[in-house]
Amino acid sequence: MSKATSNGQQLWNKVPKANAELFALTYGALVTEVVRDADENLATVNEKLEKIGYSIGIRCVDEFLAKSNSPYCKTLAETAEVLGKTAFRMFLGIVVDVVQHSPSSFSLNFQDNPLSLFVELPENYKELEYSILYCGVIRGALEMLNYKVDCQFVKSPLKGDDTHEIKVDVKQVMSDGAGEDYQEE
Amino acid sequence: MSKATSNGQQLWNKVPKANAELFALTYGALVTEVVRDADENLATVNEKLEKIGYSIGIRCVDEFLAKSNSPYCKTLAETAEVLGKTAFRMFLGIVVDVVQHSPSSFSLNFQDNPLSLFVELPENYKELEYSILYCGVIRGALEMLNYKVDCQFVKSPLKGDDTHEIKVDVKQVMSDGAGEDYQEE
Repeated sequence: MSKATSNGQQLWNKVPKANAELFALTYGALVTEVVRDADENLATVNEKLEKIGYSIGIRCVDEFLAKSNSPYCKTLAETAEVLGKTAFRMFLGIVVDVVQHSPSSFSLNFQDNPLSLFVELPENYKELEYSILYCGVIRGALEMLNYKVDCQFVKSPLKGDDTHEIKVDVKQVMSDGAGEDYQEE
Repeated sequence: MSKATSNGQQLWNKVPKANAELFALTYGALVTEVVRDADENLATVNEKLEKIGYSIGIRCVDEFLAKSNSPYCKTLAETAEVLGKTAFRMFLGIVVDVVQHSPSSFSLNFQDNPLSLFVELPENYKELEYSILYCGVIRGALEMLNYKVDCQFVKSPLKGDDTHEIKVDVKQVMSDGAGEDYQEE
């Protein structure tokens, strides 16, 4: 078992918890609300849910860094490992496989999805990216770590796939302003 | 320790869980969305959040009855005890005091509120009943048990009180149609 995995398990055991079902129903209420607000324009709904995720991701990364005691990641591969094995475990309690495609791209694969516990999409909602919140959370969290990324579901059981796959592509590695300032001193 | 309390603890240990912080942030996103949708009309927001809770309550009560193996409650006092000691524990992991005011009225008192983990209300949002979702959940759940109730927060730390108090007043005890049908046979 990798350090990131065992760290994830320990964190999951320690963090305060809520009932997964209530969480899923609350997220369902959020999706319903956004769908109504966007007059069922599903492209707008996806964009909105992604943005909500982004705000949550920015918030979560602070909490994660404060609590996880994860090592400094020197490469994207290391960051991906910590994201999939430690952060996903800490925040969702699920086990995620991390597949590195290239130095700038990786996938997170998982079976259980706490957000979509009770969900089946009707035919006319097939374009709804129900769990796109995750993509926003990942984009927000990685941006705080200086990675600008594209992030999307490429597989989802809600669309007939066997498993969930979120693919993350790094578009830009930003230089860390604060870091450089400190170096100049 | 009462039967309802120990049953609540056991259920809480058994149910699938999510990260409490992520739950609180997701609920926060829902509140934000409803506030925006209602053009910041806080009376409308409260009403909307209560209705969302009502839908969740109708759903939760089924799950609760299926999983909790709670005894049939003959009086409101017994129902209140199971609601506060078993159901609140199972769904929120929190310990609740139940105070019976009259044969048709009781209060649930608690310190920790998973929904409002990070929340402080600005001065112009003092009328927002941030956690009114609970009132809707209770109203929905009790209605499935044939109690029509009024349910409201009479104390909340978000409004300067020491503790949370939700007061439940039974307005009507509905007769259970199905039960009567069965009796006629």
